[in-house]
Amino acid sequence: MSTDSTRIVRADGREVNELRPITITRGWSKNAEGSALIEFGNTRVLCTASFTEGVPRWLKGEGKGWVTAEYAMLPRATNTRSSRESVKGKIGGRTHEISRLIGRSLRAVIDTKELGENTIVLDCDVLQADGGTRTAAITGAFVALAEAINWAKSEKILPARSKPLTGSVSAVSVGIIDGVPMLDLPYVEDVRAETDMNVVVTGDGKFVEVQGTAEGAPFDRDELNSLLDLALVGTEQLAQIQRETLGE
Amino acid sequence: MSTDSTRIVRADGREVNELRPITITRGWSKNAEGSALIEFGNTRVLCTASFTEGVPRWLKGEGKGWVTAEYAMLPRATNTRSSRESVKGKIGGRTHEISRLIGRSLRAVIDTKELGENTIVLDCDVLQADGGTRTAAITGAFVALAEAINWAKSEKILPARSKPLTGSVSAVSVGIIDGVPMLDLPYVEDVRAETDMNVVVTGDGKFVEVQGTAEGAPFDRDELNSLLDLALVGTEQLAQIQRETLGE
Amino acid sequence: MSTDSTRIVRADGREVNELRPITITRGWSKNAEGSALIEFGNTRVLCTASFTEGVPRWLKGEGKGWVTAEYAMLPRATNTRSSRESVKGKIGGRTHEISRLIGRSLRAVIDTKELGENTIVLDCDVLQADGGTRTAAITGAFVALAEAINWAKSEKILPARSKPLTGSVSAVSVGIIDGVPMLDLPYVEDVRAETDMNVVVTGDGKFVEVQGTAEGAPFDRDELNSLLDLALVGTEQLAQIQRETLGE
Amino acid sequence: MSTDSTRIVRADGREVNELRPITITRGWSKNAEGSALIEFGNTRVLCTASFTEGVPRWLKGEGKGWVTAEYAMLPRATNTRSSRESVKGKIGGRTHEISRLIGRSLRAVIDTKELGENTIVLDCDVLQADGGTRTAAITGAFVALAEAINWAKSEKILPARSKPLTGSVSAVSVGIIDGVPMLDLPYVEDVRAETDMNVVVTGDGKFVEVQGTAEGAPFDRDELNSLLDLALVGTEQLAQIQRETLGE
Amino acid sequence: MSTDSTRIVRADGREVNELRPITITRGWSKNAEGSALIEFGNTRVLCTASFTEGVPRWLKGEGKGWVTAEYAMLPRATNTRSSRESVKGKIGGRTHEISRLIGRSLRAVIDTKELGENTIVLDCDVLQADGGTRTAAITGAFVALAEAINWAKSEKILPARSKPLTGSVSAVSVGIIDGVPMLDLPYVEDVRAETDMNVVVTGDGKFVEVQGTAEGAPFDRDELNSLLDLALVGTEQLAQIQRETLGE
Amino acid sequence: MSTDSTRIVRADGREVNELRPITITRGWSKNAEGSALIEFGNTRVLCTASFTEGVPRWLKGEGKGWVTAEYAMLPRATNTRSSRESVKGKIGGRTHEISRLIGRSLRAVIDTKELGENTIVLDCDVLQADGGTRTAAITGAFVALAEAINWAKSEKILPARSKPLTGSVSAVSVGIIDGVPMLDLPYVEDVRAETDMNVVVTGDGKFVEVQGTAEGAPFDRDELNSLLDLALVGTEQLAQIQRETLGE
Repeated sequence: MSTDSTRIVRADGREVNELRPITITRGWSKNAEGSALIEFGNTRVLCTASFTEGVPRWLKGEGKGWVTAEYAMLPRATNTRSSRESVKGKIGGRTHEISRLIGRSLRAVIDTKELGENTIVLDCDVLQADGGTRTAAITGAFVALAEAINWAKSEKILPARSKPLTGSVSAVSVGIIDGVPMLDLPYVEDVRAETDMNVVVTGDGKFVEVQGTAEGAPFDRDELNSLLDLALVGTEQLAQIQRETLGE
Repeated sequence: MSTDSTRIVRADGREVNELRPITITRGWSKNAEGSALIEFGNTRVLCTASFTEGVPRWLKGEGKGWVTAEYAMLPRATNTRSSRESVKGKIGGRTHEISRLIGRSLRAVIDTKELGENTIVLDCDVLQADGGTRTAAITGAFVALAEAINWAKSEKILPARSKPLTGSVSAVSVGIIDGVPMLDLPYVEDVRAETDMNVVVTGDGKFVEVQGTAEGAPFDRDELNSLLDLALVGTEQLAQIQRETLGE
Repeated sequence: MSTDSTRIVRADGREVNELRPITITRGWSKNAEGSALIEFGNTRVLCTASFTEGVPRWLKGEGKGWVTAEYAMLPRATNTRSSRESVKGKIGGRTHEISRLIGRSLRAVIDTKELGENTIVLDCDVLQADGGTRTAAITGAFVALAEAINWAKSEKILPARSKPLTGSVSAVSVGIIDGVPMLDLPYVEDVRAETDMNVVVTGDGKFVEVQGTAEGAPFDRDELNSLLDLALVGTEQLAQIQRETLGE
Repeated sequence: MSTDSTRIVRADGREVNELRPITITRGWSKNAEGSALIEFGNTRVLCTASFTEGVPRWLKGEGKGWVTAEYAMLPRATNTRSSRESVKGKIGGRTHEISRLIGRSLRAVIDTKELGENTIVLDCDVLQADGGTRTAAITGAFVALAEAINWAKSEKILPARSKPLTGSVSAVSVGIIDGVPMLDLPYVEDVRAETDMNVVVTGDGKFVEVQGTAEGAPFDRDELNSLLDLALVGTEQLAQIQRETLGE
Repeated sequence: MSTDSTRIVRADGREVNELRPITITRGWSKNAEGSALIEFGNTRVLCTASFTEGVPRWLKGEGKGWVTAEYAMLPRATNTRSSRESVKGKIGGRTHEISRLIGRSLRAVIDTKELGENTIVLDCDVLQADGGTRTAAITGAFVALAEAINWAKSEKILPARSKPLTGSVSAVSVGIIDGVPMLDLPYVEDVRAETDMNVVVTGDGKFVEVQGTAEGAPFDRDELNSLLDLALVGTEQLAQIQRETLGE
Repeated sequence: MSTDSTRIVRADGREVNELRPITITRGWSKNAEGSALIEFGNTRVLCTASFTEGVPRWLKGEGKGWVTAEYAMLPRATNTRSSRESVKGKIGGRTHEISRLIGRSLRAVIDTKELGENTIVLDCDVLQADGGTRTAAITGAFVALAEAINWAKSEKILPARSKPLTGSVSAVSVGIIDGVPMLDLPYVEDVRAETDMNVVVTGDGKFVEVQGTAEGAPFDRDELNSLLDLALVGTEQLAQIQRETLGE
């Protein structure tokens, strides 16, 4: 690993420990109970939260709610067009995997008892992709989720004093490129990374998910630690931006 | 039919022969060869054009190009969430029907010989739906298509003097509500319409598609004529907005 | 447009405003509550009506019935065999579109309250195709529908005085070939038509659906009017044949 | 088993060893290279043969042809409507099983070398079902197959002296009802049969397929022999009808 | 047919009327209510029986139980890998056909009234294939079924005196190779057989299913009889092994 | 977290840092080029390696090989039967996710250039599930992979001196239960774990994948470190067992 990583110049001029410009536009959708258009540089994900009363059959009568997520990419979100999964008639493994990750990440900060027998579905549709779409989706979906809960309180569907959210959650990608750990990889860096890690962290700095993958060479304990340090730098800032967006 | 329709007040304050505010944002997507985010009031459709060299197998060696389209709605584009077609594993009849309509409409202004053996796929994804999504999609897709052709010329994939576009095309919905013909129906009017018509028109005022459906009572020849008159009022303005957007 | 269209000789010797020989065989199927084998020249469609008590879940308790349709082609109805949609595992866009058109057309002459909470499914299977299959299907399905309603009255499932049918409905294709509007196109004419229109009309001459498509050049208002005039000539005769078939 | 079975009166008045009225209409379809509408009493199956030059990829270059079959039922061929397999998106086990049986039965009388690298697909669509649809399909498909081969010779696609057919093939159902073996079961008998057997036999009386199933009690060797005897009575007559139909 | 078949030497040294080594391991699975790993030489099938209270909807309230089966092959059970049916998204015709055969065979020895409103699903997964997988599956599934019924009695779900099994059932393949009838064909013989027959027989020697197929030349009555004789030799031994395995 | 974890008694009597009994049976399948039946206690996974010459189309001509994996569970591997994915017609998210994980893990120790243009598919079918199926699958699949490579060398498909394997790989699950980190969780522990982690490690102790998920409460850096320590204890032993199995 490089010992002098602070002098590395990234293609977009960022420091190794610097996030891309982050923008979160709340209430982008007029129809959903909660929504956010989130941008990590050129990555743009539209997150909507659909609040419905009632729960899936397998959960009925337990006095608990349910939060789930679906992730998808528009066919031309990427540099070359990919076929629609609806046209192919099946969902790819990557889509499935990311949808499950987003759902688990959000449930980590939900107290399902406080949610009552209600369901919130988060749809995260990537409108433009430039790396880090899953972490942007988690970060934006949290905002849409919080909005939907506020909506339910304002509509008296949830009691004003209920606290379905036990905290906030955000996520960021980190990776090792030419031996240097870097924060928030755009597509050009992502394809070159030897190790790629997605880290999901609560607002108070605890881990919800740590998914590290050796794309090239296996990684050692020191590299793992550097990546986790870097991720926490990013998620701390993301948590702050979420708070500001939500007016807290 | 009301004989005094000019004094009708619509829910959004428009005249019966008035379009909703129309906005077309060119180049919304950084990855596609052509793109436009089109808004008809609260209806928002992202149209991207993907230009690829080569044609489908059944067209090879004929010296002609191909233009096709796919339409889809995000699950929460509407007031209540609908299941993803990718999750259901099949495309619904309505989606199929609209995709085919958009493709035919655009091919009506394409000279496939001038396009050479190249393919352009138009993706029209409804981000927010408030009536008239198919007509907004056609109108926006034309702009994305024109952009993609310009791109191909600037990249010297098409000769500078080639003229794949034989004209422009736009579309609008019209309908009869309480006996009164009205232009450009938002969702609240659409569900109340006795007759619903989608009209696709070239820049010089000729018909590409006329699709009229009696939702309630069958309609007579006079009603049909009133609706066509109204549609032409709308498409003339849309053609003008398209020209301005494309800087012609 | 040709100004002397009456002297045009069509491949099968017909006048431009002449239907192909039309045959409707009622009760072709012994198992269905209503059925008709309809022939427009070489086009043969078997239409069956299945009457069942009860309605789909989304309509329960509203005191109204439901009428729907499914259209399909046998794989070798056409000149070259096409794959079965059941084998491909999905229904094509064209099939979907025509099924929806048939359903809407029949519902235009149904008073769902008079039908009570009953469902009628019309299956229109093309046994042999030679152009105009969707319009033949609508015309034949109406006869099967009327038979099924008569059956339900004779079985006392519907009260003898109930009037679920508010009228009759038939359909015909028209098109412009070499500038000349023509009625009821067989396959060889259909593929050459510049403009193709399917018109669905009630027994008293009102429009249920008007679907005109520019296959080649866009069409103007005069051409549209000529086509509609021609269509009404055809549907008036079809309505008469339907009445005779049903013994009215 | 009854010892006096000849005096049994069947619901439709037939003797136990008597076929239903058999009708084969050659050339029912104008579009296919071979076709036959076959009727076993009220059971009606439309069989078409599609002849195409070339073979599936796995057979290329071996100088041999291919014959295959697809069986299906119209949704309202039966007494109560069943869902379309195309709508369900998958083919049922019964459909698969019968398609495979028809294909194997026809290949038993085909010399694939004499057929050259050509493919014949037999489509057997049940228009009306009253028991014995698979055996009617095999019997009718043979006629369509023979017609398609004649067509190929007349078109000089096959040499005049080639002999792709090594014989003829037909099939019939037999079963034991109340202990009495009976020939050619209509639906009302089929559902009551303790043992049900479908037997496919060549024109010279050899077996191609013997499929016996105990629906109620298991059967012994004597019963098996009675059923086979009866089947051969039926297939001998069917072979004769096929010869007459084909004008041999 | 050879007149001196007893001196034929088979590739694995067996006599023509000799089974391969048969092994049945009861209780191979710790999770299922009944299970058996059955081996016919190198053919290995894992059969599990899943006992659940309740019946499918169409059988509710009739006081009867249900037994059904699903057959599948691991992708590399065979010499060359085949694609997973789950990945292809549909079940092949062969799989369907065999699943149905196993289900029918087991139901032939079940008294559904004695089973009460309970369901037993037999899963037969081929771990290694060397011919005769369907007959091994039936033979093994019977053991798993008997175990599951014993389990239900020991758990007091079924009364101790109930007799859901009316007998035992086993199956074997027979075939004609170079004119010689042989018992229990491994893969190398199976592919060479002119006629292939699967015979399902009860413990007291009655037929449940007889499925004979001419793979090459059609077969005559004598050949059929020789094959049936041979099959009964095999199933008598299999019934004995089943009894020993079940400790009867 | 408990400070005295060594005195914890687990349900099966193991220490917190103790693996279940591990058994690897090489060559379990006679048909595959490599195979291993691996058992982690009651978890049993059959891993087969299918070696084929050639690579997928997208990799052709690059002089590199390909290794991929498919994971599946038999329907009754678990305590209650689940529906077959082949019957449902689609693969679940969990299955997809694990298949992708196994493939990535094995590719981490493959030098695709040394493999030449050859493909190895690893099928990991869970015959019996009791927690840790994905980690058992990775560990067993490595043995099957190594066998297949040896086979290819012995068949001279790969040069004797080629070194497609750059090392070994194994995997284990770890989790926190009642605050105590534990190694190799069976099902009863898995469902109770607050945090669940799957760790894939090379034979020389480097990480290939680290996937930690907070099932209950989020976890902190200390807990993460304890889990990683424990995982390395397990994978070191697994690497040793793999070496012994492969006779190294």
